[in-house]
Amino acid sequence: MCRWLAYSGTVVLLERLLYTPVHSLIDQSLHSKLGATTTNGDGFGVGWYGESDTPALFKSIEPAWNDKNLRELAGHVRSGLVFAHIRAATGTPVQWTNCHPFRHGRWLWMHNGSIAHFQELKRELQLAVDPSLYSAIEGSTDSETFFYVALTMGLEDDPPAAVARAAGFIEDVGEKRGIEYPIQMTVATTDGTTVWGFRYSSEGHSRSLFYSTKLSEIRELYPDLEAIQDLNEETRLVVSEPLRDLPGAWNEVPESSYGIVRPGQDELHSFKPTR
Amino acid sequence: MCRWLAYSGTVVLLERLLYTPVHSLIDQSLHSKLGATTTNGDGFGVGWYGESDTPALFKSIEPAWNDKNLRELAGHVRSGLVFAHIRAATGTPVQWTNCHPFRHGRWLWMHNGSIAHFQELKRELQLAVDPSLYSAIEGSTDSETFFYVALTMGLEDDPPAAVARAAGFIEDVGEKRGIEYPIQMTVATTDGTTVWGFRYSSEGHSRSLFYSTKLSEIRELYPDLEAIQDLNEETRLVVSEPLRDLPGAWNEVPESSYGIVRPGQDELHSFKPTR
Amino acid sequence: MCRWLAYSGTVVLLERLLYTPVHSLIDQSLHSKLGATTTNGDGFGVGWYGESDTPALFKSIEPAWNDKNLRELAGHVRSGLVFAHIRAATGTPVQWTNCHPFRHGRWLWMHNGSIAHFQELKRELQLAVDPSLYSAIEGSTDSETFFYVALTMGLEDDPPAAVARAAGFIEDVGEKRGIEYPIQMTVATTDGTTVWGFRYSSEGHSRSLFYSTKLSEIRELYPDLEAIQDLNEETRLVVSEPLRDLPGAWNEVPESSYGIVRPGQDELHSFKPTR
Amino acid sequence: MCRWLAYSGTVVLLERLLYTPVHSLIDQSLHSKLGATTTNGDGFGVGWYGESDTPALFKSIEPAWNDKNLRELAGHVRSGLVFAHIRAATGTPVQWTNCHPFRHGRWLWMHNGSIAHFQELKRELQLAVDPSLYSAIEGSTDSETFFYVALTMGLEDDPPAAVARAAGFIEDVGEKRGIEYPIQMTVATTDGTTVWGFRYSSEGHSRSLFYSTKLSEIRELYPDLEAIQDLNEETRLVVSEPLRDLPGAWNEVPESSYGIVRPGQDELHSFKPTR
Repeated sequence: MCRWLAYSGTVVLLERLLYTPVHSLIDQSLHSKLGATTTNGDGFGVGWYGESDTPALFKSIEPAWNDKNLRELAGHVRSGLVFAHIRAATGTPVQWTNCHPFRHGRWLWMHNGSIAHFQELKRELQLAVDPSLYSAIEGSTDSETFFYVALTMGLEDDPPAAVARAAGFIEDVGEKRGIEYPIQMTVATTDGTTVWGFRYSSEGHSRSLFYSTKLSEIRELYPDLEAIQDLNEETRLVVSEPLRDLPGAWNEVPESSYGIVRPGQDELHSFKPTR
Repeated sequence: MCRWLAYSGTVVLLERLLYTPVHSLIDQSLHSKLGATTTNGDGFGVGWYGESDTPALFKSIEPAWNDKNLRELAGHVRSGLVFAHIRAATGTPVQWTNCHPFRHGRWLWMHNGSIAHFQELKRELQLAVDPSLYSAIEGSTDSETFFYVALTMGLEDDPPAAVARAAGFIEDVGEKRGIEYPIQMTVATTDGTTVWGFRYSSEGHSRSLFYSTKLSEIRELYPDLEAIQDLNEETRLVVSEPLRDLPGAWNEVPESSYGIVRPGQDELHSFKPTR
Repeated sequence: MCRWLAYSGTVVLLERLLYTPVHSLIDQSLHSKLGATTTNGDGFGVGWYGESDTPALFKSIEPAWNDKNLRELAGHVRSGLVFAHIRAATGTPVQWTNCHPFRHGRWLWMHNGSIAHFQELKRELQLAVDPSLYSAIEGSTDSETFFYVALTMGLEDDPPAAVARAAGFIEDVGEKRGIEYPIQMTVATTDGTTVWGFRYSSEGHSRSLFYSTKLSEIRELYPDLEAIQDLNEETRLVVSEPLRDLPGAWNEVPESSYGIVRPGQDELHSFKPTR
Repeated sequence: MCRWLAYSGTVVLLERLLYTPVHSLIDQSLHSKLGATTTNGDGFGVGWYGESDTPALFKSIEPAWNDKNLRELAGHVRSGLVFAHIRAATGTPVQWTNCHPFRHGRWLWMHNGSIAHFQELKRELQLAVDPSLYSAIEGSTDSETFFYVALTMGLEDDPPAAVARAAGFIEDVGEKRGIEYPIQMTVATTDGTTVWGFRYSSEGHSRSLFYSTKLSEIRELYPDLEAIQDLNEETRLVVSEPLRDLPGAWNEVPESSYGIVRPGQDELHSFKPTR
């Protein structure tokens, strides 16, 4: 059910994030170790900030592992804030508009997990979307509707509060219809400066999520590791699965919590849907 | 803005409908003469009845003129009731779920034209769709929403009345928002036995639509025309553009009218949206 | 490195071959048990005989597991002789012209395995192709070149002899360049009446291949198995992997051998490249 | 039969080249005025120099006019040396490997036109390709084979001489087989620093090709034209069709000639195949 990666820090070629690591996202598209499915071949997407006010998107319905354009781009595009996502569809079509990340203005959003029995809840959830945003829903996934519910509930002003309200609303709507565990989610969202990463599920057994240790500490542990020598102190990765086996470099995001990655001190807090 | 063809009659290979005629639908995909655009290259779709209770669909986001699979299929699949559509997108994405014909149970639907300012009207129109059908809307086109509004308003029981109600509703919703000409449409729909073809537009200047003359009369006019010798008397085509120049063989569907093609006597009636 | 299925017998809907079995070819596209790779998601193809002198092809670069058109077709197309193939690319691009089966006139060909160091041998192998056939090579796979070498060496007259000559030639060319094990192959080919299936590799450790037991014997073993009650006595499957776990119903094709499936008595012979 | 654009000069966002002009290449994909076909919808490609030693490629089999990824990229990627091409196929498949520009090391190549009766000449032309390059031919177009013949004949050392030899060789091979006019070509090639553009055809009636006037002269003609104020003096476009109607800004490349665009003085010479 998808894997993703959020990168914030030194400006690097995308290939350093997507291809170079032993267990890169591209490797995870064929051989995910911690995901709900081994294969994540139902399209992919990359969003990055750079030349323009709004982030760029490159998405495709082909499996990430054999997309030549992605390989080309990754070798020629640099960014200091990158979202990347590989999809394992859970019922909705494999099409550009269903690939993550989703974008609204300067914001990006990507999701691993699902809204249980989404087809049953879809109408009620979409009716809760601000009418001025309704037509902006381009695809048919639960993830995109979740994004628009969160936008409606204030994502651009206070992301943790808005995501808590959106998740709470989904749980309300789901439970009203007798759905035991309405939401399963790791979510990343960003405004181009700060990255928020959430890990939560109604059942208390959420998809895997990790964040990288502070660069200075990794360097202390691995003074000879060339791959990170040029990265600045603010560089941080939040990922569904560690990109390589490097004891001390990866930390599990605890159940029911969220992290904030930004210039200066990062934070980790507990997360609870607002009912 | 799209071209289409509806065929009912003798079981034939699809290629006789799609490729053989001089000005076939495939030719129209590059060289439409009467359409709003010359090129109709934003995907296509074919629906046909045959082996199963529900019709088959074959759709693609590639231009019809260079789709190898369509060429293959057309040479190997036979049917006596075929809908085919080539798309010129008017703002919504080129994806499988936006290609016509659309299907619901045994029903097919295809549309040439548009709902004006659809993004503004989309929410109100989709809220009018029966809640049990809401999640079945897979794509993002005005045409598919029109289909689901018509289904909600009784398409399966009385197609002309349901289409009149749906068109009237769209005009009501549009005019309420100050849209002068809310709907432009030629529509074909079928339950697998009867074909209904509609031509209407709020402005009274509708997209082109033609139906073929009765076979016996065409044979009288062209006793040596081999292409039609094996077709039975019930065979009829309804098309956006004549497939070849054959005086007497094609008749324009009058403005604001609809036709019924079925075993036995076909019919032509005037059409007026129900407000 | 690919999985395939060859079916000969009672005319059936393709979905009975491709989707219904527990471990169908579609299931193998995500979860191959005996293949060189678990995922076979680099396109697919189906060839079948029916309406026309030449077989139909339907191929796509999408993974078989999420191709909507394949699902549609499989529910509406019937045939008594079907080739189906799912691809795991070994270096050459994922494109329509690289998907199996390959076709020449009435003949189909599909391959699981590879020609080792194909890029090095490609020129010499293609120079051996009959000049009149050279331009018919549409793609860039080793498998298609192998087909054209076999056609050059008499496939249409004596398939076992031609495949032996082609495999021998590939071994000659490979060994001349110091390649230890030039060829790895299970191959199926047909003229629309007879199916030939080959299992061979230079190293003597070939990809898996199975053929189904005679229908009458399976019925004796499983008198209540409904799935096969309507199949005639001539019905036979040759597959990379058994489609379901059914002791007695599947037999491994021995190393270095080939089988002939045809109306009347089928045959199994040993296979040795002609050097 | 294709349209293309070669840009050399000030580093700009690709969208300024591909989308902004009134008669941009994207517009030409639907409404070519001077091309052999109005629609150029059989895939496209962009190559640019920037982050890496070798140029980046982005190609797609979708029509350029509705490719979302191209739109995204164009708004986020900058370069000072760009090749862009829209394709109207002349018989060979629409696939990534058949889209221009073609790349070899630091070199790019794109072509508008065709080698007449290419299928007949293909084998002889490809046999003339250096054996070490033979396997690098990935697609099946005449244009790519032409590129590899030119590489074999010294493109990387002396492009005008190599293209003259390659064109002469194609004419020799063609005439030997009784083909009256073997080659029709406008070709652009670059090593990342210099751009060479050729216009030639055996019949002396070549596809259209234009180059832009020196920037300082255009500025004198149009002192208020904002679109060019930030472009440096070295900026030059070579295009199949002028991107906007601007008297004095575009000059036809004469029949049977080639131009050299490079830092410093550009040049224009006559071109004659070497027989």
